[in-house]
Amino acid sequence: MRAINTTHMDGRLGVQDVHGSMAHAAMLGDQKIISSADATAIQDGLAKIMEEIMSGQFPYRPEYEDIHMNIEVRLRELIGDAAGRLHTARSRNDQVVADFRLWLREHIAHLDTALRDFQRALIGQAEQHVETILPGLTHQQPAQPVSFAHHLLAYVEMIGRDRARFTDCAARLNESPLGAAALAGTPFPIDRDATAQWMKFARPMRNSMDAVSARDFVLEFLSATAIAATHLSRLAEELILWCAPAYGFIELPDHLTTGSSIMPQKRNPDAAELVRAATGEFNGALMNVLTMVKGLPLAYNKDLQGDKKATFAAYDRFMLCVAAMTAMMHDLKVNKDKMRAACEDGFLTATDLADWLVMALNIPFREAHHITGRAVAAAAGQQKKLHELALAEFQTIEPRIKAEVFDILTVEGSLARRTSFGGTAPVRVGEAIAAAKAQVG
Amino acid sequence: MRAINTTHMDGRLGVQDVHGSMAHAAMLGDQKIISSADATAIQDGLAKIMEEIMSGQFPYRPEYEDIHMNIEVRLRELIGDAAGRLHTARSRNDQVVADFRLWLREHIAHLDTALRDFQRALIGQAEQHVETILPGLTHQQPAQPVSFAHHLLAYVEMIGRDRARFTDCAARLNESPLGAAALAGTPFPIDRDATAQWMKFARPMRNSMDAVSARDFVLEFLSATAIAATHLSRLAEELILWCAPAYGFIELPDHLTTGSSIMPQKRNPDAAELVRAATGEFNGALMNVLTMVKGLPLAYNKDLQGDKKATFAAYDRFMLCVAAMTAMMHDLKVNKDKMRAACEDGFLTATDLADWLVMALNIPFREAHHITGRAVAAAAGQQKKLHELALAEFQTIEPRIKAEVFDILTVEGSLARRTSFGGTAPVRVGEAIAAAKAQVG
Amino acid sequence: MRAINTTHMDGRLGVQDVHGSMAHAAMLGDQKIISSADATAIQDGLAKIMEEIMSGQFPYRPEYEDIHMNIEVRLRELIGDAAGRLHTARSRNDQVVADFRLWLREHIAHLDTALRDFQRALIGQAEQHVETILPGLTHQQPAQPVSFAHHLLAYVEMIGRDRARFTDCAARLNESPLGAAALAGTPFPIDRDATAQWMKFARPMRNSMDAVSARDFVLEFLSATAIAATHLSRLAEELILWCAPAYGFIELPDHLTTGSSIMPQKRNPDAAELVRAATGEFNGALMNVLTMVKGLPLAYNKDLQGDKKATFAAYDRFMLCVAAMTAMMHDLKVNKDKMRAACEDGFLTATDLADWLVMALNIPFREAHHITGRAVAAAAGQQKKLHELALAEFQTIEPRIKAEVFDILTVEGSLARRTSFGGTAPVRVGEAIAAAKAQVG
Amino acid sequence: MRAINTTHMDGRLGVQDVHGSMAHAAMLGDQKIISSADATAIQDGLAKIMEEIMSGQFPYRPEYEDIHMNIEVRLRELIGDAAGRLHTARSRNDQVVADFRLWLREHIAHLDTALRDFQRALIGQAEQHVETILPGLTHQQPAQPVSFAHHLLAYVEMIGRDRARFTDCAARLNESPLGAAALAGTPFPIDRDATAQWMKFARPMRNSMDAVSARDFVLEFLSATAIAATHLSRLAEELILWCAPAYGFIELPDHLTTGSSIMPQKRNPDAAELVRAATGEFNGALMNVLTMVKGLPLAYNKDLQGDKKATFAAYDRFMLCVAAMTAMMHDLKVNKDKMRAACEDGFLTATDLADWLVMALNIPFREAHHITGRAVAAAAGQQKKLHELALAEFQTIEPRIKAEVFDILTVEGSLARRTSFGGTAPVRVGEAIAAAKAQVG
Repeated sequence: MRAINTTHMDGRLGVQDVHGSMAHAAMLGDQKIISSADATAIQDGLAKIMEEIMSGQFPYRPEYEDIHMNIEVRLRELIGDAAGRLHTARSRNDQVVADFRLWLREHIAHLDTALRDFQRALIGQAEQHVETILPGLTHQQPAQPVSFAHHLLAYVEMIGRDRARFTDCAARLNESPLGAAALAGTPFPIDRDATAQWMKFARPMRNSMDAVSARDFVLEFLSATAIAATHLSRLAEELILWCAPAYGFIELPDHLTTGSSIMPQKRNPDAAELVRAATGEFNGALMNVLTMVKGLPLAYNKDLQGDKKATFAAYDRFMLCVAAMTAMMHDLKVNKDKMRAACEDGFLTATDLADWLVMALNIPFREAHHITGRAVAAAAGQQKKLHELALAEFQTIEPRIKAEVFDILTVEGSLARRTSFGGTAPVRVGEAIAAAKAQVG
Repeated sequence: MRAINTTHMDGRLGVQDVHGSMAHAAMLGDQKIISSADATAIQDGLAKIMEEIMSGQFPYRPEYEDIHMNIEVRLRELIGDAAGRLHTARSRNDQVVADFRLWLREHIAHLDTALRDFQRALIGQAEQHVETILPGLTHQQPAQPVSFAHHLLAYVEMIGRDRARFTDCAARLNESPLGAAALAGTPFPIDRDATAQWMKFARPMRNSMDAVSARDFVLEFLSATAIAATHLSRLAEELILWCAPAYGFIELPDHLTTGSSIMPQKRNPDAAELVRAATGEFNGALMNVLTMVKGLPLAYNKDLQGDKKATFAAYDRFMLCVAAMTAMMHDLKVNKDKMRAACEDGFLTATDLADWLVMALNIPFREAHHITGRAVAAAAGQQKKLHELALAEFQTIEPRIKAEVFDILTVEGSLARRTSFGGTAPVRVGEAIAAAKAQVG
Repeated sequence: MRAINTTHMDGRLGVQDVHGSMAHAAMLGDQKIISSADATAIQDGLAKIMEEIMSGQFPYRPEYEDIHMNIEVRLRELIGDAAGRLHTARSRNDQVVADFRLWLREHIAHLDTALRDFQRALIGQAEQHVETILPGLTHQQPAQPVSFAHHLLAYVEMIGRDRARFTDCAARLNESPLGAAALAGTPFPIDRDATAQWMKFARPMRNSMDAVSARDFVLEFLSATAIAATHLSRLAEELILWCAPAYGFIELPDHLTTGSSIMPQKRNPDAAELVRAATGEFNGALMNVLTMVKGLPLAYNKDLQGDKKATFAAYDRFMLCVAAMTAMMHDLKVNKDKMRAACEDGFLTATDLADWLVMALNIPFREAHHITGRAVAAAAGQQKKLHELALAEFQTIEPRIKAEVFDILTVEGSLARRTSFGGTAPVRVGEAIAAAKAQVG
Repeated sequence: MRAINTTHMDGRLGVQDVHGSMAHAAMLGDQKIISSADATAIQDGLAKIMEEIMSGQFPYRPEYEDIHMNIEVRLRELIGDAAGRLHTARSRNDQVVADFRLWLREHIAHLDTALRDFQRALIGQAEQHVETILPGLTHQQPAQPVSFAHHLLAYVEMIGRDRARFTDCAARLNESPLGAAALAGTPFPIDRDATAQWMKFARPMRNSMDAVSARDFVLEFLSATAIAATHLSRLAEELILWCAPAYGFIELPDHLTTGSSIMPQKRNPDAAELVRAATGEFNGALMNVLTMVKGLPLAYNKDLQGDKKATFAAYDRFMLCVAAMTAMMHDLKVNKDKMRAACEDGFLTATDLADWLVMALNIPFREAHHITGRAVAAAAGQQKKLHELALAEFQTIEPRIKAEVFDILTVEGSLARRTSFGGTAPVRVGEAIAAAKAQVG
């Protein structure tokens, strides 16, 4: 379903409000709380309103406080006094929070789809770059060569956990508060299981005061958003750096950058910068609602009204960020040569030398490190790469070193040998891509 | 297992560090990466260190940077050069984050136990107060009478979801980063499944760069803590208000309040105030780490070091808060008379009158509200309770009202009639307590 | 000046943008960087645009990116090619941040006026209630009687410091970035002192990179807002509690509360609840921008674009909150009897007894406390007030106590005696009101 | 004065507590509230305690709740019962917040000195690098050449405003709460002006409830800290990038980086990373206290106790960060060649060409931009720098271009021409350094 297009924020709950009222009216009729004639009239009126909303024809009138009152007024226009029976055994308190849970459940599903598409874009790039090598960094310093695909797959993992957090959140909030009434339940013989089923909630909430007071489902959503946003911000930062001339590893597409008339070659990575900046909005939204609920006594307090504005804004912004990242990941061009060239700096095979000393010569790990350090220092002193040292020079440092050492001092060899599970060797990365595709779908 | 008692923060990972090293050493031996003699020596040394830690005898020396280096140095003292083989095919990056995941998994279990005990304390009080009635509030204004047990059970629900969030967090972080090495994996023929199993991780993490870079598990933990803390703060606020003379609903025990020599009758609810205040610390810790990871390129950056300090502090404070709340809930005394007396204010049965008009007289809901409003206004005008109005006065407002109306205008009746699932009727609350006991255990 | 009314957020900088361009054009003409004919044409065009904006006739067209581009396009429509000279020796970077500083300076002035009006409302109520007594609380427990006026004047002080913070912020940001150009200055012979004077900035900023990169002025504004909001939230909380029946100290006016059709006597303090909740938005806005600027290299980055959205939203919300608080303070009704009656609980004159023991009997402070404690305990044990104890009972506790003790055990006496500077004695409070009126104006 | 060295956090207020008690005792004696013999005994005892604290000999005993009780107990040991008179006309509420204001005033002074030293270090490097040129970036893309000194001076400006914020904070908090007693003032004839003067506070606070309840001075301090930390984080980010091989602009000294035994050439910029990360701690501390004070009714609540822990931790961390940045700025080595070489990328003189077209050929600004864009595109298409285009090629784009154009296409010329006030021309930068030295001292 599609949300109605209205600038009034609360208008966004229109579809869900009609949906919830349909469930409530059906139950009221089935339980003989209202007559079946009234129940039918209400259902017909609500169906008409849903149609109006979906087709953009619903007459939203700001003079009626909010979307809920607009729908109530419209229903009365359409079916007359029977409309007055709909609110039997219900309160705004349980009605609105039911709407909001429906909305959030539905929109987490959209968001999950968007994140899956982003994972696919990452995997799509990864498939092209299993053997594309760039320096793996620690402390922004080159440390070991890694496959570009491997680097991208790290984000597939993070996003996978983000999706799981959203899924957990959606499952946990998927309980029906409807029937809690204002706060204490109702004397009418309502059937909360029936309304819960109608709205595809897993079950009715067990405590009426909890149902109208709790907003941890909002906080959990905003937390999941803020956490996921940190992952987006990390990749955004990398994209910004990678397309700076100092790195030059990638080129972002024109439609996701802005140029300047004066420097047409310049491509400012605006989209990536905005994703990086958006982290602040998610942190802010979370802090907003955490502050808001601090110390609120049960049950409903007006303070809670702000939960929706913060959630809608965070959702909108998050979807924009994911869309921007997906588009950038789809369309970025990789400059393999610059990535590979950058692997020449920084003695990226030093760890390989140390590992070889342990494996081939059975030198204890700590000593192997020490020997390697001396070799690196020797090379650095002569402005040479490690593999440019002469065998004799190696042997001055450690006599047992043999000519086969040069086999392990290549960047490609370094990559190929890291075959431990989860490692960057192309053979492992290939398997990881296959597994990711199977999982992400 | 019990953590070592050391003021040095990193000392807290001692047990986990030895545990992880045991797993690693066993695997290195099994895979013939080190000799079985070395593997045995290392295992024996580590067992000795574990013993020292558990008995408080471990010689922590601040001159060695951190707990990891202290253990390394100690191992060398105990077993000599074989100690140098332990770090084969491992890096501080994967080692420390493995330790930290072990620590967090274990301490989430402690925390879950503490929260369960708090739920039990809530249920324990609830069992005593199924028929204790207090005004249910909205906007801090009396709205409808509720069972005190029902009020407490709302918190049992909230804490139940909090526990579920921690459990989800523990399950999601329960993957082994060990074997990721510095960032790219290793050429040694390690068996990551074996070490994962040894440490009871569900599986090895699938991507080495993710393994050393990601801190979403910390953020998820801190989020769960901050969210749970909002629940504690809400109850803390209620306790503070309830023990103010204006309410006088409860009395907190001496050991959880402070008095003053000058006003010995005064009981300042310090413990509850500190729980309320602690919300700030959890929000702060979460904001700290969210800010910290914003925009960090892969893989390891020193920035990440701060994750542990924030986590340990939040854990310690959270456990203190839960313990304080549990103790207060155990030991608070309820002043039933004051609770019941407060139900006389505020026309708490107005909703009952409206519902009765709908049910008994088939008056549409909105009209029933209007009639009720006029009755309340009439009573208020005469400074009477609703049930103190004469039948004739009711009939002036709505002629169909009959004498049986007085049956529904009692506070106890109001409570008893709210029998919808999740409602406050004692019969429902009794069932809810039974269900909660079954679930919480 | 009045800001243009446009839903497009950036539209809000319209007035300031024209203002800044006028300054720039005048200077370009004076410095002969453009011809005087062009300068005149530009000035005339800008004057026309300002007129259009002020009268709500400015044709804002969303297809042109933002307000700045809209004004540029409109200027070209009005004056033709000369419009193209306006951007000489200027960049969007320095232009927009100059606009924003102008906007903030102007709106801090509005906000200062609003806060002054709030102080006046507080003082106005205080004047009516110098001798109205309510329990002063610590830990939400009654401690000592205080004048209601004295309580309100505490907020006059807090708001006074808030105003000072805003004033400091406005003074610190009142420097002109114009002329920094993109980031490095410009080769054109511009006169930055002239443009700064034209816009009434105190001086040009001294470093061009700082001018376009720094956003601490935004952070300082948002901090001042968040801090001031904590003060509003504290009073909002008190209003909410005071109008709950348990206290019943005040009655909020109908137009600032909402009732319910069913319980017309109920007055939900919605406005106060929304002010209390808004604290979250200010904390969130501050956290947003703090996160956003973290770790941004110089000079301009697109991330900074979010500063305005956060600031505008915080400003709007803050003004609403202050207006709501001012209106509540103007129109609240005080229930003196309930306030006074609440002073009977809690032995509010215990401190007076202790002080009297010290002053009249020269008993050391700590011992006086002890004696008082025993008297309070004796009274509490008999469910008596302190002044209801018989003299003989006092003398059992401390033989030197004489009948004059009863003079000091009255609530009114307690108040009257606290004549230390800044104390709650009516004589002091009266002086404090006079001083506050003199200062606030 | 030097703070006592004690691990107990509250121990940090020891010096201030004695100081405040001296003021109070002197006043009590002068006002005849206590005898002059008692006053003298108390002063002597306090002087002895101060001596003990300053010499590290003060017997801090954890069994006495906090530093205030420790000092009270110690005073009684030293002078006997007269000690019991010190607390006359005082309460813990006004005593502790007076101590805390003294502490913060004093430590803001230390912090101001530290920030001044950091400014000096920035200026010191700037003096060496007026003519050292690096690419000025926007969006992390090279935009225009700037002087390295100019870049550093931008931070001198930011830190200057930070210092002003701290100074404003110190001035605003410099009021004496002493004499507010518990919340309402006192009947004793105290002289609050006298104690304020003794402690060098500007004046006594005007309202006793404000005096014990307000914590905006803490929030203002934490805000100033968080804002200043964003500046440090921005420079820290730049240092991290600049010492990455991709840039290679600077080299950080050994003692502020960590290496690895295996890659001795690698210098991990740990100190800069920790400064960058610390932003999170300051944001967290601010959010902590903002949350804590939200919605607290007057007067004192135990919640407020957390203000000191947050403040002490933020102060300590901030001082560490400033010290680290100062040390890095002192000792970093600049690689001028790499900075200058990086100016060859990215057509850094494109703006100069456009400006020249306007100035020399009187081409309107927007058209000049367009011509420049075509020239840049032409050069980029041939993989040339702008100055490597032939004159004929320029003339194909715009026939009026003459050979003198080549004079303005040099990086050094670009720098030299940006002579607008605040611009990067060496002549301006030299003046800016002189002005900064004069101002910073």
